[in-house]
Amino acid sequence: MRIARVQTGEGAVPVMWQDGLWAVIDDPFAVEPTPTGQTIDADTARLLAPSVPTVILGMAHNGSRADRALPPQAFHKSARTLAGPGDVVPIDESLGRVVVEGELGVVIRRRARRLQERDALDAVLGYTVVNDVSAADQSPLDSFWTQTKNGENYSPVGPWIETDLDPSALSIRLRVAGAEVATGSTADLARSVPELLTYVTRYMELGPGDVIMTGCPGTMHAVHAGEEVAIEIEGIGTLANLAG
Amino acid sequence: MRIARVQTGEGAVPVMWQDGLWAVIDDPFAVEPTPTGQTIDADTARLLAPSVPTVILGMAHNGSRADRALPPQAFHKSARTLAGPGDVVPIDESLGRVVVEGELGVVIRRRARRLQERDALDAVLGYTVVNDVSAADQSPLDSFWTQTKNGENYSPVGPWIETDLDPSALSIRLRVAGAEVATGSTADLARSVPELLTYVTRYMELGPGDVIMTGCPGTMHAVHAGEEVAIEIEGIGTLANLAG
Repeated sequence: MRIARVQTGEGAVPVMWQDGLWAVIDDPFAVEPTPTGQTIDADTARLLAPSVPTVILGMAHNGSRADRALPPQAFHKSARTLAGPGDVVPIDESLGRVVVEGELGVVIRRRARRLQERDALDAVLGYTVVNDVSAADQSPLDSFWTQTKNGENYSPVGPWIETDLDPSALSIRLRVAGAEVATGSTADLARSVPELLTYVTRYMELGPGDVIMTGCPGTMHAVHAGEEVAIEIEGIGTLANLAG
Repeated sequence: MRIARVQTGEGAVPVMWQDGLWAVIDDPFAVEPTPTGQTIDADTARLLAPSVPTVILGMAHNGSRADRALPPQAFHKSARTLAGPGDVVPIDESLGRVVVEGELGVVIRRRARRLQERDALDAVLGYTVVNDVSAADQSPLDSFWTQTKNGENYSPVGPWIETDLDPSALSIRLRVAGAEVATGSTADLARSVPELLTYVTRYMELGPGDVIMTGCPGTMHAVHAGEEVAIEIEGIGTLANLAG
């Protein structure tokens, strides 16, 4: 199932992909969402970030198998940094280099606390593409990465959520200004999605719509104002945003 | 003006204190909130956290004038950690010591980005009491403090917001299990509220209801299950929660 969120004249509505159209649904977090009967043409639909998270987490040093030597470590991004497909990510050059990271995003379906690895995926709604934008030159100045990770529109998410997907070995391709600049795979991540969920929910509650950015398997690049950033993940699609 | 949030049969409603009653208001973030005409008896009102933040920030090493030698540094607490007056803070002994910190909380009134010190207080709705609960033994294991700061109900806020208050020299008293265990003053904090707001909004957007915990001027103590924690700030009131 493919779940998205679409802007309409009456506000944002959750939708699922059905017979070549976006079908409005009652509850995107239901195991079997119910279509309301209203549909929206794909050509005219303005897609938003597919969920509205209360918590957005990134994973530090999770980008290579070698990172297993380090303990897992999560960091917060402000929920106010959420952006959708096509949104502009402003580049504030006074903060130094801005770097984009193409990553797999995990979207949580229900309240989750102290998950066990064997059934952690039961708490997952599905997977999406995320761009973990950083003001990279700030990180040596701020050990909590608060200065680094919280700029305007620094967390693009989308274009939709795929619910039936094995997250363990998906290719990621990063294009900047039309050129492919990096490729990677979720198979290179230090820890699996169940391992990350078990770690995080040992210490904090997650809930419907929350997003975990799973870490960057080499799929990062500096960007400048005017460049388009497109991140494609196998089995999901492409998230594109303009650096502005 | 004193602003709170009260649980009713129809859900949570914002209120202001007027003539010995809680008067329901239309918009707690308005400069002049409009009473709807409905009132709630103080004796029966169940107070909730007075705002619903999207962002909760704590301030590291801001508790003494000596901390001015270090750069300012903010950290996130998950918005899911929000708790209200009287809520129980569960103690998970498997994480080690749990420590409470009595602090002044700043509640944001409007969208705030790149504030200047001279008018930063214009973005403030008012001040409240917060308890920045920590699983203190986790902090050496996790440089982002994600494991430390995000337990269930780890951010009690309340009992209300005072809008007409000078935050610069307010006494803070911490009682645990009926005994006064620490006292301090916001005058001891390394940085003023305008300085903190200028710092934070240089790097991230804040908005209505967001809470900044301003740092702990010595007003901290370890707690154990069964102990009541009461934090009193001059000019505001007392926030009480049970460690459970």
